[in-house]
Amino acid sequence: MKFTCQGLELADAVLKVVKASAIRTTNPILECVRLSAEDDKLTLMCTDLELTIIKTIKADVSIEGEAVIPAKFFAEFVKKISGEQINFNLIEGNIMEIFYGENKGIIQCQNADEFPEPKQLETPKKLEIKSNDLKDLVVKASVAVAQDDSRPMLRGILLEAQDGELRGVALDGVRMALVKKPLINQEDFGIVVTARSLMEIVKLLPEKNETITILTEKNHLKINLENTVLITRLLGQKSDFVSYNQIIPTSFQTNIVINRQKLYDAIERASLLNLTERNHIIKFNIKKEMLTITSESQQGNITENIPIEHTNSDLVIDFNGRLIIDCLHVISDEFIKMNFCGVMSPCVITSNQEKEDYLYLVLPMRV
Amino acid sequence: MKFTCQGLELADAVLKVVKASAIRTTNPILECVRLSAEDDKLTLMCTDLELTIIKTIKADVSIEGEAVIPAKFFAEFVKKISGEQINFNLIEGNIMEIFYGENKGIIQCQNADEFPEPKQLETPKKLEIKSNDLKDLVVKASVAVAQDDSRPMLRGILLEAQDGELRGVALDGVRMALVKKPLINQEDFGIVVTARSLMEIVKLLPEKNETITILTEKNHLKINLENTVLITRLLGQKSDFVSYNQIIPTSFQTNIVINRQKLYDAIERASLLNLTERNHIIKFNIKKEMLTITSESQQGNITENIPIEHTNSDLVIDFNGRLIIDCLHVISDEFIKMNFCGVMSPCVITSNQEKEDYLYLVLPMRV
Repeated sequence: MKFTCQGLELADAVLKVVKASAIRTTNPILECVRLSAEDDKLTLMCTDLELTIIKTIKADVSIEGEAVIPAKFFAEFVKKISGEQINFNLIEGNIMEIFYGENKGIIQCQNADEFPEPKQLETPKKLEIKSNDLKDLVVKASVAVAQDDSRPMLRGILLEAQDGELRGVALDGVRMALVKKPLINQEDFGIVVTARSLMEIVKLLPEKNETITILTEKNHLKINLENTVLITRLLGQKSDFVSYNQIIPTSFQTNIVINRQKLYDAIERASLLNLTERNHIIKFNIKKEMLTITSESQQGNITENIPIEHTNSDLVIDFNGRLIIDCLHVISDEFIKMNFCGVMSPCVITSNQEKEDYLYLVLPMRV
Repeated sequence: MKFTCQGLELADAVLKVVKASAIRTTNPILECVRLSAEDDKLTLMCTDLELTIIKTIKADVSIEGEAVIPAKFFAEFVKKISGEQINFNLIEGNIMEIFYGENKGIIQCQNADEFPEPKQLETPKKLEIKSNDLKDLVVKASVAVAQDDSRPMLRGILLEAQDGELRGVALDGVRMALVKKPLINQEDFGIVVTARSLMEIVKLLPEKNETITILTEKNHLKINLENTVLITRLLGQKSDFVSYNQIIPTSFQTNIVINRQKLYDAIERASLLNLTERNHIIKFNIKKEMLTITSESQQGNITENIPIEHTNSDLVIDFNGRLIIDCLHVISDEFIKMNFCGVMSPCVITSNQEKEDYLYLVLPMRV
């Protein structure tokens, strides 16, 4: 194996694929990047057996072949060779010689045969979606993904393609996020993918709002982009996930419309008083055209008043302020709706615009 | 105590003084900010008994007085009240009412009488220096300050005013930094100040390059700026510090001139191979007009070649690459001098310009 490529292009590609390499694993080959030189291309691949990222760049290949190099070292190394041409030469003993400028590195490679092959999809289901819609769906849904490992399925986002839209659903026992985006083309499916894989995948989507194709078959999801292939194992099927539709209340006793930024600022200030406590309990008091938020601790108390549009009953209800802040953080609407069905039932937050493309559900605190 | 002030101005002032408040102390009043309203001014003060920061802003004072509020909470709180006018009113029970917009906070204050008074200097010694020179001196010297507590005096920087210049000296047992800056006006002195206090102080110096006055008396150093007073306890006197002059070699057997950025990049790459080891050993081989840097580990080896100007003997010598990187990081010269006096003696790094205003000394590794 012998090839030459541009340092900047290589560094960019390595930094992208390395996100899929394993950290602290018992199988050191998963902490490596596989380099494959063929025709006039170099293909880089990392995988931790869950997420696989493959990127192809131009290269001047004089001897085709494969090599497997420690990924973290390689990424740092090529990042620090700024803008130069780099020559690679695999010699006996599985040793890679790297020449750059006047300098030379010699790196012990692993056996390329032991590196796992990327999963091939035979007859996958297919859907087409705008890349910005997929990004937005993942960012907004991942807010509600469980952070602990007690129920692994809740570390995932349910992706459900149905009725011309893609739904992303995540929940962690105290809140739920449901995000809907239009599909261009679709075959029905319902799969669960880890939030971590989806977050890495959307970071690699093109900046321009392009139509992308998602392929899925049995246990895998695959996205083909220009020069990049993303594959992730599924965490499960729709049937493994919580039946989320049953959780969403259908009738409400109290409905308000409120300025999102004002609500955000008020909860942020009110939460300061009990920062050291585990739960940031704040009290919502909805009365006439005003929401009064209060919090109390040994240090003192804070009272915040926000004007609202309000229909139906008054209400006093307690929340963990952090749960509401988290969802307000990913919404960009100027005004939002908050719908309540009593002091022991969840609050449902939606857009105040006609097209409701997200829904957050937050359980109250029982004080 | 009753006053009104601008939220933005108050937030800026609190965020600055809070750097001097104590963290995790047995005396909770040191985790507070003291507010003093007098005439048409509000004065804010924090101190951890080592560093004291005092700032004064405009206020509309209707009842003069003092109050002591938890500093961390107060800083976060006023930061989150963006741009509004804030009204303060101290009521019975040492409780501060804070009114902003439609909202209200009530905070329990501590007893203002228990807050330590700032140290007054009676007949201090004085020196005048350009603020940019003081900043540069502190940043360049602090590189060599000891990070562990085994010898507390080495957590400080020696400031020595003599012969029309201020010298800043720091050392930690394996390296030393000596930085010299011109003084405008000076009385001789030699004091040791903790690097932490000096770093906080230089952050508060004006952005413009103004002449500032440093006052020192017995155990304290004081700087008066516009609307800001900085006071720090001294760690000791010159006599408590290491006699650094004896450490600097006076004659050299090997002298090179080298491009700083090229040296920096080469050591960075060479150090990648032994990142997991405690000492980043790299080998310098000076021969004719070339410095060859090599590093070795189980992973492989790296060879970097950098052209140099070279006088006197050839040399092969080992260093902890991190120590050299640290000093190259704060230097801006295009070319630097490295002077050696044998394989067991320190390397001395200075500017290649005529005015040598810094000197770094790095001990070699004994492999």
